[in-house]
Amino acid sequence: MNQLHDTAIRDFASDNYSGVHPEVLDAIAAANGGHQVAYGEDQYTERLQQVFAQHFGEGVEAFPVFNGTGANVTALQSMLPRWGAVISAKTAHINSDEGGAPERVGGMKLLTVETPDGKLTPELVDREAWGWGDEHRAQPVVVSITQTTELGTAYTADEIRALADHAHGHGMKLHLDGARLANAAASLDLPLRAFTRDAGVDVLSFGGTKNGALGAEAIVVLNPEASEGLIYLRKLNMQLASKMRFVSAQLIALLDGDLWLRSAAHANAMARRLRDALDAGIASGELHGLGFTQQTQSNGVFATLPAGVADKLRACGFRFYDWDASRNEVRWMCSFDTAEADIDAFVAAIREELAAAN
Amino acid sequence: MNQLHDTAIRDFASDNYSGVHPEVLDAIAAANGGHQVAYGEDQYTERLQQVFAQHFGEGVEAFPVFNGTGANVTALQSMLPRWGAVISAKTAHINSDEGGAPERVGGMKLLTVETPDGKLTPELVDREAWGWGDEHRAQPVVVSITQTTELGTAYTADEIRALADHAHGHGMKLHLDGARLANAAASLDLPLRAFTRDAGVDVLSFGGTKNGALGAEAIVVLNPEASEGLIYLRKLNMQLASKMRFVSAQLIALLDGDLWLRSAAHANAMARRLRDALDAGIASGELHGLGFTQQTQSNGVFATLPAGVADKLRACGFRFYDWDASRNEVRWMCSFDTAEADIDAFVAAIREELAAAN
Amino acid sequence: MNQLHDTAIRDFASDNYSGVHPEVLDAIAAANGGHQVAYGEDQYTERLQQVFAQHFGEGVEAFPVFNGTGANVTALQSMLPRWGAVISAKTAHINSDEGGAPERVGGMKLLTVETPDGKLTPELVDREAWGWGDEHRAQPVVVSITQTTELGTAYTADEIRALADHAHGHGMKLHLDGARLANAAASLDLPLRAFTRDAGVDVLSFGGTKNGALGAEAIVVLNPEASEGLIYLRKLNMQLASKMRFVSAQLIALLDGDLWLRSAAHANAMARRLRDALDAGIASGELHGLGFTQQTQSNGVFATLPAGVADKLRACGFRFYDWDASRNEVRWMCSFDTAEADIDAFVAAIREELAAAN
Amino acid sequence: MNQLHDTAIRDFASDNYSGVHPEVLDAIAAANGGHQVAYGEDQYTERLQQVFAQHFGEGVEAFPVFNGTGANVTALQSMLPRWGAVISAKTAHINSDEGGAPERVGGMKLLTVETPDGKLTPELVDREAWGWGDEHRAQPVVVSITQTTELGTAYTADEIRALADHAHGHGMKLHLDGARLANAAASLDLPLRAFTRDAGVDVLSFGGTKNGALGAEAIVVLNPEASEGLIYLRKLNMQLASKMRFVSAQLIALLDGDLWLRSAAHANAMARRLRDALDAGIASGELHGLGFTQQTQSNGVFATLPAGVADKLRACGFRFYDWDASRNEVRWMCSFDTAEADIDAFVAAIREELAAAN
Repeated sequence: MNQLHDTAIRDFASDNYSGVHPEVLDAIAAANGGHQVAYGEDQYTERLQQVFAQHFGEGVEAFPVFNGTGANVTALQSMLPRWGAVISAKTAHINSDEGGAPERVGGMKLLTVETPDGKLTPELVDREAWGWGDEHRAQPVVVSITQTTELGTAYTADEIRALADHAHGHGMKLHLDGARLANAAASLDLPLRAFTRDAGVDVLSFGGTKNGALGAEAIVVLNPEASEGLIYLRKLNMQLASKMRFVSAQLIALLDGDLWLRSAAHANAMARRLRDALDAGIASGELHGLGFTQQTQSNGVFATLPAGVADKLRACGFRFYDWDASRNEVRWMCSFDTAEADIDAFVAAIREELAAAN
Repeated sequence: MNQLHDTAIRDFASDNYSGVHPEVLDAIAAANGGHQVAYGEDQYTERLQQVFAQHFGEGVEAFPVFNGTGANVTALQSMLPRWGAVISAKTAHINSDEGGAPERVGGMKLLTVETPDGKLTPELVDREAWGWGDEHRAQPVVVSITQTTELGTAYTADEIRALADHAHGHGMKLHLDGARLANAAASLDLPLRAFTRDAGVDVLSFGGTKNGALGAEAIVVLNPEASEGLIYLRKLNMQLASKMRFVSAQLIALLDGDLWLRSAAHANAMARRLRDALDAGIASGELHGLGFTQQTQSNGVFATLPAGVADKLRACGFRFYDWDASRNEVRWMCSFDTAEADIDAFVAAIREELAAAN
Repeated sequence: MNQLHDTAIRDFASDNYSGVHPEVLDAIAAANGGHQVAYGEDQYTERLQQVFAQHFGEGVEAFPVFNGTGANVTALQSMLPRWGAVISAKTAHINSDEGGAPERVGGMKLLTVETPDGKLTPELVDREAWGWGDEHRAQPVVVSITQTTELGTAYTADEIRALADHAHGHGMKLHLDGARLANAAASLDLPLRAFTRDAGVDVLSFGGTKNGALGAEAIVVLNPEASEGLIYLRKLNMQLASKMRFVSAQLIALLDGDLWLRSAAHANAMARRLRDALDAGIASGELHGLGFTQQTQSNGVFATLPAGVADKLRACGFRFYDWDASRNEVRWMCSFDTAEADIDAFVAAIREELAAAN
Repeated sequence: MNQLHDTAIRDFASDNYSGVHPEVLDAIAAANGGHQVAYGEDQYTERLQQVFAQHFGEGVEAFPVFNGTGANVTALQSMLPRWGAVISAKTAHINSDEGGAPERVGGMKLLTVETPDGKLTPELVDREAWGWGDEHRAQPVVVSITQTTELGTAYTADEIRALADHAHGHGMKLHLDGARLANAAASLDLPLRAFTRDAGVDVLSFGGTKNGALGAEAIVVLNPEASEGLIYLRKLNMQLASKMRFVSAQLIALLDGDLWLRSAAHANAMARRLRDALDAGIASGELHGLGFTQQTQSNGVFATLPAGVADKLRACGFRFYDWDASRNEVRWMCSFDTAEADIDAFVAAIREELAAAN
């Protein structure tokens, strides 16, 4: 097959616009050849359990799946009775970007709360944490948080611990959507387990795809008592790979070594470089009309621009998404393969278009 | 990542025990690098549409998905109202091997019919094709067939045409589960469209994984009037790949050229070699107690063995599945990477164990 | 409101063509007036628990619902994990007459078995009781039987005990669809608990409507360990009556006394009268071309007639359903309000039309 | 069956604490006797179509169901593709009181909006009316309003017309939850069709139970193009009554004459009497610490009381619900059978307890 695309183009739309890290591709090739038992009874999936244990400790179990929606819905379903509901931020991916899959496929109700920065707190949880025993209300059984959040912010380990304690105190469980868990670890400079298992998280969706995999996520059960039937639910939810060795090999490539951390730290650093350059421009009075709506704690920068400037930048060839078009808010994401030169060129373009707009 | 497995081991358990064809791996690598729009707006998925049009003609639309269960359930859902039912063979994969996903996720009832060889006929369809307009009966709206069937048999183009005409005559639609569609084309020596679109099939699940992909299937809409909302259903059913370029690249590698046919023809030839060698042994009086329950029309051989022989063969290191243990029926599957030497070694082992058993 | 219908017309189509027994109407009126807590916290629903305990013993719990489909699907759901399947006869109402509600609303797969008389046996159960632990197969967790069956036959207490022991031995549970449980008790001349709780049934759908109620069924949990979450599932499944006192009052009217048994015994006797009269006519050589496909063990008679005779009888004003039109099989149902004169008139008509047909 | 309850007790908890209007009971009795075709082919259900046509005009179709949850979920499902979402007020019954049935059974996502008074406006709708064509977002296809609202307020006909125009302008449909539609008509002093069909409502849930029925609701399709498959969905959703004649007879009793309006007007008048008496007490300086959170436009009064007073009133034997306990808000509902003396006694008690609290 011929290469159809220009491999020199990189932009700021999403960390899933990037491709596969070469070390991940190598791992796929290494797992190839010969026959391996299908559906997870292969040697790579067996090995993957040990790799997850390196990070999260003994007694955890990982279930590789295809994508983040599958990981989240299946993980949550395994934590919920049929009459259960999930408390989450309104901006949570499970609420805003999964097309209703949690409701339709998972059969669960989401009880959502507005937040300033994508982060729940015990107080925000309490807005929806009530009504147990009343059959007229979907029963709040799980609190779900995203780390790092959809707004690029990161929970501290203490914040997660407070949420876990609060949830457990009400007989609820804590799920963590870790589509960008590696970015959080890099941002917090903590081992993965410090702000997940050790902080009281019960079940985790671990994201490999945005971290440089071709397509590999895993549900990681940190507390075996918090989840039931994953082996069946993964199949029912159509997330069971026949040639699972290749999904597991991708995750091994990321996690059995420091590729996961190198890649995430790099992506975060690129966002930091972008934010710092722009902050400096604002401080020096050079950049007018630019603002930021969130702290830059991982690999995404959330900014506001004067009307029209976003489209001008796009016309220069830089792709990125509007976040809240009604207030000219945009999102700029960096990836494991974002280069310093990409940042510098983008900063230059922003500088130019802002100047032209003023 | 280190290679953990013995690449010299190949056996007869399933065509999904095999790995990835090297040309498919090359295609994944070629699609790597740079940024591509996620979720299907990439150049490989665009190109894939043309590749499918080469095979099925203009006006078809392909939706890449992760796996066969996802392809089948999503395809069928797009063909059915909420109150619809599907008529299939009892042995159909959608009935026997998808853990209830069609019912629980798809919300559909399966109306199944016993068949001698995994193939429906208009007469068999009629056993369940009734009750339209009666709300007490799930409404039969789709007939679903598998090509090649789960029993290794192949429908002729005429047989499919007869089923399509019959279904359409009753206002029903025809779905085809083509997890091994390539094997059918090789077996029938016909272009793909001759026994699908030209024979009246409305919607197709095209299987790439068993044909040598890492993990790539596609729902192919041959009759646009027979399917609705696939773009939404694929997302809802958690089958939407973010880095879709790599799924599409795999299918391009198979289908834009003759890799699909070479691989399938080889797998079929290996099954033929196995069957022929054993038939010869039976004819010569050398092999006692061996029989066959189905014709060998693709890459699977269905045999009966004297009690205990299957386990003896497994003890020699050959993996394969019991099909119907109650009558000592086993299934032997060949793959794109099955070698002639694999067959010959297996035949020798069968010969030896049968001799020992008599 | 004016009476719009001819109250003199009674026929043989279904026991739900009949109306409400006057004693049930009286009970509804007695429960009227004043305010009662809605959704089941009323005094009639409280009393109903005691009434069910009279019949089934201490420790049972009854959940009134609207209709039989609701009772069956909700009961089964409470007995099943999300990945569970139900083994039933192919003729079971849950499979053939509930429009796919068990699959779509309940999310469960039905594993059905052909039977000669609508009755499962341990051997028939075994055809589908396998595959535990294999995620590719919906897990058989419940066996569901109907008493009396959809074919008018009745299980003996011993037969039910054998099924319960068999199911429990495999870690499965036993559900009983008792839409016509009263008819079974009358037929077997046994207390209700003798062939339900004492025979090992775990959860029961108790049918009041066909027994003379306006619309009242109940899920009765005989084994509290076999069912979970009914309070929530009843609400979720839209089976929670706000003015529940009136549903409960109907069931009290039937069960707190012998109305249930009087009504059922009468309906059975009318079917017996019909069968005996026709059997006598056959024995005496008077009636030609009439046959019976099932034993008459409750309130339904299943007969075969010469072609055309069924329609002739309908033209005389007798309504009834074809059962299997392909073999001229019809079903004649009797109800609590079927009069001896109704039977005699129908026998005379059958006699006349058979004579004309010969 | 003996009467178990004190018929002299009436309180203010809910209009479904009341029983059945005697004229409705008479209608049930009139529909009794003889045999009628089950499942809706009876003469009362046929007549009901004409009765609804009297109110809503020719071309409407009514589907009797058991309860309000069933009416709402089934109506909405018939208006939505599988990927559809519903925009509603956060306080809407479908969001807050149906235990997650719209999500789990209906498979739909609710996109909810905070409102001051339970009423949507075009501007509020626009907060969630976006994202069409984007498969990552559940597609907003229906706007659902409640009339009168869960907060006792009533939309004017013009307000509904504005919402219908706005929804239709975006290709969306308008559903109206009319659990208390009769109270709205009485409040607005308008015929039913003036603020429903003539205002652009597409499908209606008509509530009979709170209006004095035993248990009778109906889905009324005002715009046949807005709804599909109700005959099947009602069965699938387990809302199909076998002895439907008795459900239809209740609705005929209410609507074929002015019982519906008399009962609703009386309930509204009782709430008015309560509010007026309390307003007078406040104006005269007699009542301290009492306030109102909503206008009293139908049969419910929403009030705030000094801490502890609600429980004191309950200790006097008056049952009612907290609405928002965090701000001492309570809800007092009146019913068709609330007597003037009930109001006067309750006002006296409030007066006394407020005095004691100050």
